[in-house]
Formats: sequence, C-alpha cells, structure tokens
Amino acid sequence: MSGYNVAVLGATGMVGQEMLATLSRRKFPVKDIKLLASARSAGGTQSWEDREYPVELAEPAAFRGVDLVLSSAGEAVSRELAPAAVEAGAVVVDNTAEFRMRDDVPLVIPEINAEACRQHRGIIANPNCSTAVVLMPLAPLRALGKLERVVVATYQSTSGAGKEAVVEMEEQIHMQMHGKEVPPAVFRKPIAFNLIPAIGSFREDLYTSEEVKMTFESRKIMGIPDLAVTCTCVRVPVRVGHSAAVNVVFDRPVSLEDVRAILAQAPGVRILDDPASHLYPTPLECAGEDDVLVGRIRGDLSHPNGVNFWVAGDNLRKGAALNAVQIAEVLVRDGLLKPAAVRPVPS
Amino acid sequence: MSGYNVAVLGATGMVGQEMLATLSRRKFPVKDIKLLASARSAGGTQSWEDREYPVELAEPAAFRGVDLVLSSAGEAVSRELAPAAVEAGAVVVDNTAEFRMRDDVPLVIPEINAEACRQHRGIIANPNCSTAVVLMPLAPLRALGKLERVVVATYQSTSGAGKEAVVEMEEQIHMQMHGKEVPPAVFRKPIAFNLIPAIGSFREDLYTSEEVKMTFESRKIMGIPDLAVTCTCVRVPVRVGHSAAVNVVFDRPVSLEDVRAILAQAPGVRILDDPASHLYPTPLECAGEDDVLVGRIRGDLSHPNGVNFWVAGDNLRKGAALNAVQIAEVLVRDGLLKPAAVRPVPS
Repeated sequence: MSGYNVAVLGATGMVGQEMLATLSRRKFPVKDIKLLASARSAGGTQSWEDREYPVELAEPAAFRGVDLVLSSAGEAVSRELAPAAVEAGAVVVDNTAEFRMRDDVPLVIPEINAEACRQHRGIIANPNCSTAVVLMPLAPLRALGKLERVVVATYQSTSGAGKEAVVEMEEQIHMQMHGKEVPPAVFRKPIAFNLIPAIGSFREDLYTSEEVKMTFESRKIMGIPDLAVTCTCVRVPVRVGHSAAVNVVFDRPVSLEDVRAILAQAPGVRILDDPASHLYPTPLECAGEDDVLVGRIRGDLSHPNGVNFWVAGDNLRKGAALNAVQIAEVLVRDGLLKPAAVRPVPS
Repeated sequence: MSGYNVAVLGATGMVGQEMLATLSRRKFPVKDIKLLASARSAGGTQSWEDREYPVELAEPAAFRGVDLVLSSAGEAVSRELAPAAVEAGAVVVDNTAEFRMRDDVPLVIPEINAEACRQHRGIIANPNCSTAVVLMPLAPLRALGKLERVVVATYQSTSGAGKEAVVEMEEQIHMQMHGKEVPPAVFRKPIAFNLIPAIGSFREDLYTSEEVKMTFESRKIMGIPDLAVTCTCVRVPVRVGHSAAVNVVFDRPVSLEDVRAILAQAPGVRILDDPASHLYPTPLECAGEDDVLVGRIRGDLSHPNGVNFWVAGDNLRKGAALNAVQIAEVLVRDGLLKPAAVRPVPS
C-alpha cells in the first residue's frame, strides 16, 4: 500500500482528534498511522477509520520510520520532540508557537504562501488559530492596495484552550445556573457568562503573547515585514469558532464591490453577508466548517481608505488541523515529502 | 416634605428597576414617585423603599404634577409621551435613542459635559449604553492630544436588550446543555454559546444603528463634530456588563504614564490593570458597580501615536440608570429642575 507513515503527536487532544478526522475526510494518503501522546494521555487505544490503534508514548524513538508528523501537543513537547522527529527523517508540521518565528522554519497558510513550504528544513509551522482565521480574508485584500494599518479585536472560543477549557466553561455555566460557583482552573477568571481579555502570557510591552502573534505571524505569512497590526485578544464563552472584528486601512480608497469580488474568489473563504436576510457569520455557523466565513463588510466612518469586516472560522479546523493537513498536502503535491522507503537511512 | 415628584417611565423593565434602585441608593430628593408602564406591564403594584406603589398606565395625563421623568420604555413610547410630559411641566431624562441627536436636546454624560444640561428645553437625552461605557475613559484622554481616530469593537451583554433577552439566553443555554434547541425570538440568532455581530437595525451604509451611535453620540457628547470613530457592535452571552476593545490614535505620541495618570483622576473611572496579578476588567467584575473599569492599557504596535485599552461597565448602571440619575442630580444642583409647587401652572 502506497502512502505515508503519519504520526499525530498530541493525538488525544482536541486538535489531534480533528487532525485524525481531517486526514480521513480529505483522504490524505496514509500508509500507517501512529498516535502519540504525553505520558499523561498515552496508553489505551483509539479508533481511526474503523481500526483500533494504541496511543503510544511520545518519545524520540517513536518517530522511527515516520514520514510526517502532525504535532499539536504544546510548545514544550514540540521543542523536545520535533528535532528528534526531523533527525529520524520525518517532516514535522507543528501547530505550536515554538518554531513559528524562526527564520529557518516556514510559517504557512497554503492559500496564502504555499510556496514557502519549499524552504522547509524539516519543520513547517502552522499559524496561531486566530491569526489563520483573520488572514484568510485579509491576505487576499492586498490585491486592492497596500495595507497601511490593521486593527483587530478577537472573540476566541474556549476550545482554543483545549478540551479541559470547554469542560470548565460548561461546568461553570451548569453550576452557576444552579446558584453555585466553580472556581477557574484552566482559565484565570470565570468564563461562564463572562469575558477574559487576556489570552496567553503578558509581555513587557503589556501585550499578551496571543496578541503579538497576530502582528508577527501576519507579517511573516504575508511577507510584509513592516505590516502595522495591533490586536486585542479576548476569550468568550463559546465552544468552537474564533471570530474577529477587523479594521483595515489601505493606501488608497477601495470599493466594497472590489472587496466582495476578491473575497468571493478567495479559496477557503465564504462570504455570508446579507443584512436584509440577517446573514452574517457567527461561531455556531462556522463550527464544523472548513471555510472561514466573512461578513459585515462595510466602509469606515473614520477613514476614507478604511474597510471593516467580521470573520468567524473554526479554530480547530482552519485555525489548526485543517491548515496542518493542507500543508501536508502541499508537501505531497510538490514532492517535498519522501516516504521512508525511498529516503536514505539516517546515519 | 421637600423634593421632587419623579415618574419612572418603563418602571418594570431592567433599566427602570435600576433607576428606582439608583434613586434610592443615591438618596435623590424624591417627594413622590410614580411608576409608569405600557399597557402590557401596567397594573399591579411594585415596592420601592418599603412602600407599595401602583404601576400605572403611561399616558399623557399621568404626568400631571410630575417634576422629573426618567424614561426608558423604548423609542416609540418616548416619541409619544416625552412631549406630553414636557407640556405638563416636567423635565424628561430620556434613555432612548429618540431625541439624542436632536439639536435642541442635550446629550449628557455628567462627568464629560454636564454643562450641556443648561441648554435643555424639557428633554435631556441619556447616551446609548455602549457609548457611555466607552466615553468614560476615552473623553478624559483628550487632555493628552487631539483624538485623530478611534476604532472600537464592543462585547455587549444580553441585558442591553432587556430582561426577555437575558431569559432567552439562559433558556437556550439550559436547553442546549440538555441537547435541545430553543429557537431565537428576542435575538435573530441563537445567543447561547454564540456571538451575534449585529445589534439594532441595518442602515444603508451597512453599519448597524448601534454602531453609528458610537460615532455620532461620541461627537456630540465630546463636542468634536468631525471626530473619526468606527465601531463594530457584537452581542455576547453575558448577563450584565458591556465591554469594548478601544484603539485610539492621537495627533502626537502620548506616554502610558500620562494615560494612567489621567484615568486615575477621571471621576467614575477605575483602573484595573495589573498583568502580574491578572487584574483586568471583566463583565462579572463591572456588574453591579457604578465605576467603569479600564485596563489592558498599552501602546500600539501599529502606530507611534496609538494607545489600546479595554473597558467594561455595567450597562444598566453607567450605561443607563446611573447616568440618568446623575443627569437629574446636575439639574437639581444647577437649579434646572423646579418642583411643581413653585412652577407656573401650565396653561
């Protein structure tokens, strides 16, 4: 049987599960699959395509014979294990922040910069979930003019923080409706009927790590080193789907007709924008969809060259697993992934 | 007994209830109180300060002998009844959008433009809930330089749409957690575990009525007719508390120390901003508070003259009832409200 030996690192997590489902749904040429997890989650079995697979301990030896690793087990795990996987001859598509800003690691959204995959030296980084969702409609708009400045406010679902975070939200909501409080554990503050305007860790400049990802990853993916982006990232009591209010100022006036024409043709983007019919993207509507939904496309009362839009995308799909599998598909298509059978044996 | 005859129009609604509580809490000099409601809600009694009052039908005759009307029963009711109340000799503090943009009606946040009350001709308008929350920290920052441009994204609680909206959210959440759906009625889309990026009605320019309030009311209250403001308004599954991510560009660089110094002295504003201690405003923390909370004060990676902040304020208090009662207090303080006893009898 032809195809690739694929390892999913972090196979028991929400993104890992979605990676497995996406490989199957998109008929990625899998020869054999390996489910890897940290000591906490390893052991037992998990089914994939009607077969049971053991969930094995993620350790360097596990990558022997593996061609492709889809990794989403946290930065520390990627830091330790991605080099080992590369050493073993695999290509790693890494969904953590660990390698994203490294000069020798391409950071890729295939619809935007698939060609960057050619520069890979074993690791290709998947962007942050909210960055991926925002860039899907933003990047194509470069055709209309230089992006002078972008102001983003995000509305990020709890699944972006993992399944324990979703459970915490649901428990808090359930107990609160019965008059009881569940103290926060995954989050720093209660998320039930609340918002948390801080995701990730705080930096010296008082931005959060999540917020600067929007700035720096956008620059790298779009190849605009000085792109002016500022962002506020906020956690909202939603299960799946990251949304954002995006304000873009171009270097010239742009027509909404042109914006819509560009977005209508952008792969992976779907316009949902009809005020008369109350059509606009919501998290519930983007959850479980591959396409990123964009709507509320309108001018800008504050700037003649400004455009506002609202975007919602499934953070587990385009924000994580789908994009990772799409990167793997580019590797296959462009001959950048060699099955172990035809690779020189690592010394 | 000295004091004023006060009528609360929309007394059974969330804002009306909060108006009654605020009058009491702030010891507004009430001589007699009158609870008015539409035919749907009139009848029965309601207690205030340990006495029972009938909930009377809101009609022109109800304003006889009334000095002050606090009105929050919707635009149509204000359109019909506010002129009648003025005709009867009362001053109306109106919490609807009906009169806000009229040249002969002051639109007032007392901490910002109390002096505008002097121009009143019977009606003084209370700003929109999200506008009030955002302007509390924004307006004082004018001391640091001209506001070149403001980009706002709101996160507005369901109570901003009335108590039926809160009930709808809670029912939807409750039923959804038991695997059932409750179709939206108050809102256009499900609000449980969701976001609705459209508040109010759509305009021809594709903004919503709620969004342009932020622009036009801000200009009027701050007295900057050409102020550049763009806004996206989003409903979130929160009970009480409107929040907003605000990006401001000044005409010069401003220091964060100066921003903090200004906000620390701004009446009605409280800074909650300490990343090390995970202090930042959340809706749960602003609910039930008079002060508007501001945090996440930081520079702007996209602009040398930019500042970002996050604000959360109780939409029923500073966003509605508190501000209305504060306007009434200004009227009393500045001799702009005359008790019926000393007024000439209307012809």
